[in-house]
Amino acid sequence: MKVDAERFLADLHKLREFGAAGVGKGVVRPAYSKADIAARDWLAGRMREAGLTPQFDPVGNLFGLAEGASLLLGSHSDSQPEGGWLDGALGVIAALEVARAAQEADGPPISVVSFEDEEGRFGVTTGSAVWAGSTPLEVADGLTDRDGVSFAAARAAIGDRSGDFIDPARFTGYVEMHIEQGPVLDGSGEKAGVVTDIVGIRDMRITFSGQQNHAGTTPMHLRRDAFQALAAFNAAINARFRNVVTPATVWTIGHVGLHPNASSIVPGRATFSMQWRDGDSDRLNRMERIIRDTAEEIAQAQGMGLSFGPMLGLEPVAMDATLRAALEAGAEAVAPGNWRKMPSGALHDATNVARLMPVAMLFTPSIGGISHAFEEDTDEADLVAGLRVLAEAVGRLR
Amino acid sequence: MKVDAERFLADLHKLREFGAAGVGKGVVRPAYSKADIAARDWLAGRMREAGLTPQFDPVGNLFGLAEGASLLLGSHSDSQPEGGWLDGALGVIAALEVARAAQEADGPPISVVSFEDEEGRFGVTTGSAVWAGSTPLEVADGLTDRDGVSFAAARAAIGDRSGDFIDPARFTGYVEMHIEQGPVLDGSGEKAGVVTDIVGIRDMRITFSGQQNHAGTTPMHLRRDAFQALAAFNAAINARFRNVVTPATVWTIGHVGLHPNASSIVPGRATFSMQWRDGDSDRLNRMERIIRDTAEEIAQAQGMGLSFGPMLGLEPVAMDATLRAALEAGAEAVAPGNWRKMPSGALHDATNVARLMPVAMLFTPSIGGISHAFEEDTDEADLVAGLRVLAEAVGRLR
Repeated sequence: MKVDAERFLADLHKLREFGAAGVGKGVVRPAYSKADIAARDWLAGRMREAGLTPQFDPVGNLFGLAEGASLLLGSHSDSQPEGGWLDGALGVIAALEVARAAQEADGPPISVVSFEDEEGRFGVTTGSAVWAGSTPLEVADGLTDRDGVSFAAARAAIGDRSGDFIDPARFTGYVEMHIEQGPVLDGSGEKAGVVTDIVGIRDMRITFSGQQNHAGTTPMHLRRDAFQALAAFNAAINARFRNVVTPATVWTIGHVGLHPNASSIVPGRATFSMQWRDGDSDRLNRMERIIRDTAEEIAQAQGMGLSFGPMLGLEPVAMDATLRAALEAGAEAVAPGNWRKMPSGALHDATNVARLMPVAMLFTPSIGGISHAFEEDTDEADLVAGLRVLAEAVGRLR
Repeated sequence: MKVDAERFLADLHKLREFGAAGVGKGVVRPAYSKADIAARDWLAGRMREAGLTPQFDPVGNLFGLAEGASLLLGSHSDSQPEGGWLDGALGVIAALEVARAAQEADGPPISVVSFEDEEGRFGVTTGSAVWAGSTPLEVADGLTDRDGVSFAAARAAIGDRSGDFIDPARFTGYVEMHIEQGPVLDGSGEKAGVVTDIVGIRDMRITFSGQQNHAGTTPMHLRRDAFQALAAFNAAINARFRNVVTPATVWTIGHVGLHPNASSIVPGRATFSMQWRDGDSDRLNRMERIIRDTAEEIAQAQGMGLSFGPMLGLEPVAMDATLRAALEAGAEAVAPGNWRKMPSGALHDATNVARLMPVAMLFTPSIGGISHAFEEDTDEADLVAGLRVLAEAVGRLR
């Protein structure tokens, strides 16, 4: 089963033209924009030329269907408001090329998908979430974007392209190729990452309430400074996590809001985000215990009020053993000793599709780890290497 | 020399009626408001009744002048947008009562002043700053309040009340009584604080610039997280200051701005305020050295860019030894063993007046340390005790 690297790269560059940002290889192709719909129409044509039957569902997910039972490959072709040319587009075009190569080599039947609104103009991975049933359509329809446009109104752009939802039972599994969107493979020089699991996420707001005071007249020992409580919490968490985490665990305080946030006033209140991600639910829970206990200890020691906001929780998704083994064998065939197993720290459509069928994921390097930016890029040799890994894996699954 | 506590308290309550907020003892009497001008007209009348010659200067500072050389007592009668009934008003009415008592007892000649816009509708302690020459009038005239009204336009409310600026040479010194606006005296139960110095202030913005990244795909060891740099800076500063500071030294990180300040993004930039206050210029300078060195060490260790904004600097003002000794003797006479020497952590009109003549300050307790709020209050027995300390001190200065 032989892929055509030139045809693959030509299609990838052609897709970039829809919404080309005029800055480097940047792309502006958010879900349901004119550029997004035009790109999907073009993709539908390429699917038909590849002998697949293109079909839109009611939320704009575009499938290119093979006859009978098939393996589903793909990703998404919408972009961030300021996005790169690869992101989900890479996985869609790679799927298209592997489907063509499989047909030409009389290989296994391959269907292709481009999910809609993975980038979350409305929700999070909205198109695949609706298809997989994680988000009911009537709930999704009530979501609005930053300009107040509803999902229901936006998806009307699909118009009479829309058919029914595709029955997931026709697919034997789903494999998604994607850029890593992180610095690991670029840093190590490895050509591919076979994903072990998509990490789970916990995210909550924490608030310390102390005493707002005059920064001149309030002695240090009489202060209840909410920023100092936050700083003490951060230091304690960093120390206590050491015994619990793996090198793949991440945690972030990305949002901080002090009140009243003025240089001459001792902060009376600090609200901040605490987010942590790991592939193991037990570890996520142990970290949550440490976070809550530590915040309570700090609050007690520093005379603070303490409140926790609601916790967002997404469970880790383990990749299917058979599909993953095929990707590992493919990686070893294409780049012997020069690939790795790794978790996905980001969410992907595969997270939703895992509710319906076995899933697996393959990463290619991201230069500098940069994504969701016009600067996003990957060496074309690495893109082709990734494509070959995917084809090798599919060949092993027949 | 015997003060009349009832007359003093009656005047203090009368002054509160101008701009009474309708919430507790709260007052809304910002500089040049109708309530402020009406209060000054009433004060001018009370000065005249006390045998003083009332005189407004071009910025609305109201003097009640004794004949010949005199000691100047007072403070300010404007309030914060949401202020308390005491703040500067206490010092003005106490001055008025001591002037009356001195006349009745054939004591030393006492003049009275109520400075204008101490609360900084336009600048910082604007009225006394213009009188003392720290802020030239033409510079002050260009200042605007939050609504864009200029100082020049606002002070026109003085109208034909305005006379010339008063020659400071007619005053032998200035003594300002004020509420502490901090928790020290209220906490210790002491009746009075004799100010040793008004602390100096240093204030600057510091920015750490790291690398904005995806909070899921960026491993901890590859992050350059600007919030973590800020937290490390805060911890190091707190540890290193221990060998340098006194119990009266204060420092505050009151403002923090992260960029982009989102829970799923490793912060790329942290801009924060660093403010420190102390009565000793050398100590302020040593602290500045520690702050700059520590920020540079953290930036180097964590791979951060570092920039310092311009530094605001106000030098400490030592109280005059003779005036201060008189206040100490007065405090010991009124509340033996139950008063203290202490720095003023806040700025006051005395800071400016110190450019013109010897100055000293006396503090009375603030319940809960609360000021610049409708809740601001002091037990009336403590107000009267403070008045008596002031009168005792003045009696010793004849």
